[in-house]
Amino acid sequence: MDEETGTAALAAERCVACRPGAPRLGEEELAALLPLIPGWAVIERNGAPRLRREFRFPDFAGALAFTVRVGEAAEADGHHPALLTEWGKVTVSWWTHAIGGLHRNDVVMAAKTDALSAGSRQ
Amino acid sequence: MDEETGTAALAAERCVACRPGAPRLGEEELAALLPLIPGWAVIERNGAPRLRREFRFPDFAGALAFTVRVGEAAEADGHHPALLTEWGKVTVSWWTHAIGGLHRNDVVMAAKTDALSAGSRQ
Repeated sequence: MDEETGTAALAAERCVACRPGAPRLGEEELAALLPLIPGWAVIERNGAPRLRREFRFPDFAGALAFTVRVGEAAEADGHHPALLTEWGKVTVSWWTHAIGGLHRNDVVMAAKTDALSAGSRQ
Repeated sequence: MDEETGTAALAAERCVACRPGAPRLGEEELAALLPLIPGWAVIERNGAPRLRREFRFPDFAGALAFTVRVGEAAEADGHHPALLTEWGKVTVSWWTHAIGGLHRNDVVMAAKTDALSAGSRQ
C-alpha cells in the first residue's frame, strides 16, 4: 500500500472507544504511522506528546469555518482536539487525555483533519 | 454609573478602526476599565499584554457553539480574538495586533464576550 492509499485508509477508520489503560502508540508504531500524516509534528505539552498542525486561511471566517468542520468530525467520532482559531490560522492538536499520550485514534483524526482541509492554504 | 451599567454600556460600544499608531490603553485607563470586565485577566504573551478568560461548558458541542458565537461577533466588529476550543472549555484572548498591546476595542470585545456567555458555566 503506498502512502497516499495508506493515508486515505487511515482517514476512513473510525475511532475506537478509548479508556484509561488503553495502549499508547509505541515508538515503532508511531514511526510507521507518521509518514501517512506528513504535515503533523509530535510536540510535547504538559509532559505528554500531542500531534499538532497549523492550517492557513485567507481570513478569520475561513479559519472559523474550518474549526467548525473539524469540531463536527470530532463530535461524530467522539474524540476531541484542541482547536486554536486565530485570524487566518487554525492550530489543531490531537492527543488522548485518558491515556496521557497518543493513541491510534489521534493519527486517524489527524488524517481526517487533513482530508477536511482540502482547499485551505497550508 | 455603577459597574453593571458601565459593563452593559461597554458591551454596546462598536469597535473603532484601529491602525498601527493608534493609542494603546494607558495604565490608568486600563485600571479604570478592568473592574467592568471582572472575569478577565491581563496576561503577557510574546512580550505584549492580552485579555484572557476561560469559559466552561458541559461538553465539546457547547464549547464549539460558543466559539462560533464569539467568532461571529468578532466578524461583525472586525476585531478578532484567539479562541482555544477544547472539551468543555473555551479560552478567549483579546489584544490588538496592530499596536502590539491593548486598545479600548479589546475591553469592549471582552464585555461583549461576557454578554454572549450567558448560560455557560464560568
